Amino acid sequence: MAPVKYPEEFAGFAVLDTAEWNKPKYINFKPKQFGENDIDIEIECCGLCGSDIMTAKGGEHGWGQITLPQIVGHEIIGKVVKIGSKVTLHKLGDRVGLGAQAFCCLQCNRCKSHNEQYCAKGVTTYDGVYEDGYVSQGGYASHVRAHEYMCFSIPEEIKSTEAASLCCAGLTVYSPLVRYIPKLANGEVPKVAILGLGGLGHLAVQITKALGADAYVFSRTDSKKDQALKLGAKGFIATGSKDWEKAHYDQFDVILNCAIGLSGLNIDAFLSILKVQGRFVSVGLPSVEEKYDVSPFTFFSNGASLCSSALGSREEAIDLFNLAVKHNIRPWIEEIPISEEGCNVALTRAWNGDVRYRFVFTEFNKAFGTGKA
Amino acid sequence: MAPVKYPEEFAGFAVLDTAEWNKPKYINFKPKQFGENDIDIEIECCGLCGSDIMTAKGGEHGWGQITLPQIVGHEIIGKVVKIGSKVTLHKLGDRVGLGAQAFCCLQCNRCKSHNEQYCAKGVTTYDGVYEDGYVSQGGYASHVRAHEYMCFSIPEEIKSTEAASLCCAGLTVYSPLVRYIPKLANGEVPKVAILGLGGLGHLAVQITKALGADAYVFSRTDSKKDQALKLGAKGFIATGSKDWEKAHYDQFDVILNCAIGLSGLNIDAFLSILKVQGRFVSVGLPSVEEKYDVSPFTFFSNGASLCSSALGSREEAIDLFNLAVKHNIRPWIEEIPISEEGCNVALTRAWNGDVRYRFVFTEFNKAFGTGKA
Repeated sequence: MAPVKYPEEFAGFAVLDTAEWNKPKYINFKPKQFGENDIDIEIECCGLCGSDIMTAKGGEHGWGQITLPQIVGHEIIGKVVKIGSKVTLHKLGDRVGLGAQAFCCLQCNRCKSHNEQYCAKGVTTYDGVYEDGYVSQGGYASHVRAHEYMCFSIPEEIKSTEAASLCCAGLTVYSPLVRYIPKLANGEVPKVAILGLGGLGHLAVQITKALGADAYVFSRTDSKKDQALKLGAKGFIATGSKDWEKAHYDQFDVILNCAIGLSGLNIDAFLSILKVQGRFVSVGLPSVEEKYDVSPFTFFSNGASLCSSALGSREEAIDLFNLAVKHNIRPWIEEIPISEEGCNVALTRAWNGDVRYRFVFTEFNKAFGTGKA
Repeated sequence: MAPVKYPEEFAGFAVLDTAEWNKPKYINFKPKQFGENDIDIEIECCGLCGSDIMTAKGGEHGWGQITLPQIVGHEIIGKVVKIGSKVTLHKLGDRVGLGAQAFCCLQCNRCKSHNEQYCAKGVTTYDGVYEDGYVSQGGYASHVRAHEYMCFSIPEEIKSTEAASLCCAGLTVYSPLVRYIPKLANGEVPKVAILGLGGLGHLAVQITKALGADAYVFSRTDSKKDQALKLGAKGFIATGSKDWEKAHYDQFDVILNCAIGLSGLNIDAFLSILKVQGRFVSVGLPSVEEKYDVSPFTFFSNGASLCSSALGSREEAIDLFNLAVKHNIRPWIEEIPISEEGCNVALTRAWNGDVRYRFVFTEFNKAFGTGKA
């Protein structure tokens, strides 16, 4: 492969057909028009997020129709190699991170209240549509172009490969945890139930502990118990046995659902372990065909609520990186050099749950002939 | 009918067969064993609540199996005619109200934190099961026996017939409104969407306004617009037209779902009018066969949450009655003398939505030969 013809073109590994979702191919492509608040990042490494798979699969078994070719990846770390005329937050050569959102309007109430992840004009880092119709492309690529506001500096204490997973997985669990873990009276320690110990869950355990609450991991079998405790969980509950929930009635302030699939999840049992007005928050998104089947009766016994949380704000990303430095929060990662073969192996293994707990693609300079800037 | 043989027996109008749910018959029955914290109320009047119908219908079109014979009714006003040895909150001759809950343990965390409506040992005013197996009977009756804590004094400014509907309908909407209407910065007035203008909704409008927020009534057609505005609503939105929600995007802090049925309710459209982290709270309970069909995606665009709220606490009941005096909150009621015929007419008309907005049964002394105590 010839070196990427930056800045005219970017290059990346693109899904060309959703039936071949785990076989991205090398392509060159035109970036979006460069805006005065945009920056270009020459990518050093990029994490593999469950969203990449659900997007790449498309259709009803994924997250619906996508634009092809599509380059996924939104846990991006790299170097600023170009800045727009109005950029004030970053300078050339800075190491920055970019998560799952590449643009927000900064004009609406949501943007002005640190809720830009819910901006109606927001554009996701890949498969998002800009006002001019351009469809965004993600981080399995040589470069990415994004609004400066959506990029954040990475503290020097954190290695790039570890910072990558914090940009999406970390922020996605940090935001609901920091918003919803209550302050309790009389020094009582809040209890958080974390469903599923994977890419999201293993960070949620560490972040919950850093926020001063007790994390309890709920998993179908005992197989991840040792790892959960090593990550700092206060307890581990296997939910495979009948009536497991009885012993935990009315104990938890928050349930963070980090499991992507809903099949077989007994929501009634989980809601019963919540305290009055506790929250069941989903951060994993299942395929579009999966639904919760809930009755108002489901919530009636304790006034609990069901919600989802999407990504996090810039402010929360910055707070998370500071917390990660202070409390040594780090993803457990497996590095894999980016290439067509590397993408295929990592996507396939991640879909099969065969990773502890997050893949990060590396050696971008080698793949794209970058690194000279 | 002979006068009730109180205190050995109570009398009431009981559902004998769920197929004949709207034809209660006069019966005499043994009350529960008198506890040291119990009081007996000689009933003066009792409101008709939607719960009465859903309970009486039983089975899948109602709220499931019930114990027969069953006397419904849980918006009870009457006079204290007997007090247990440890009663401190009431004295003989007091006028008191009793809502939908007749017992709580007062020992658990929930009871101790003004959430006794979620007490696991709580017993509902009718068709609830006490520890000794006795099944409670409700307020279409000569008397009712209940724990003193679940009964509250009624301010003299409020007529008994109007106080009745506040005991359940009023409290049921007051509790989520007072818990969930946020305090906004810069003097901004919170906006509450009230779905359905009926027995619950018409009180929710008045209470929302008294709590300093703006109430907007959402209804399928314009037919109740004048009444909504007369009750104090700031606005009225008919949801029958396509894309009605577009004009209200990101405007509301809370949606209070006072509509019992879910059929045809477009939850996605309603969630879109909520601000970030807004709440969709159901207080009406549909039949057990009706479900919400929601995906985590449903909540993903604004982090909104879905919950239910059950009844309210004693503390909230007392606050509500004080608020009602201060702000002249009154149900719009239609009085109907209690009798087999009266029960039949009122239950049938209420099921058909033919009441503005609440029935209250009266003339209990005449029906049961009481009033001499």
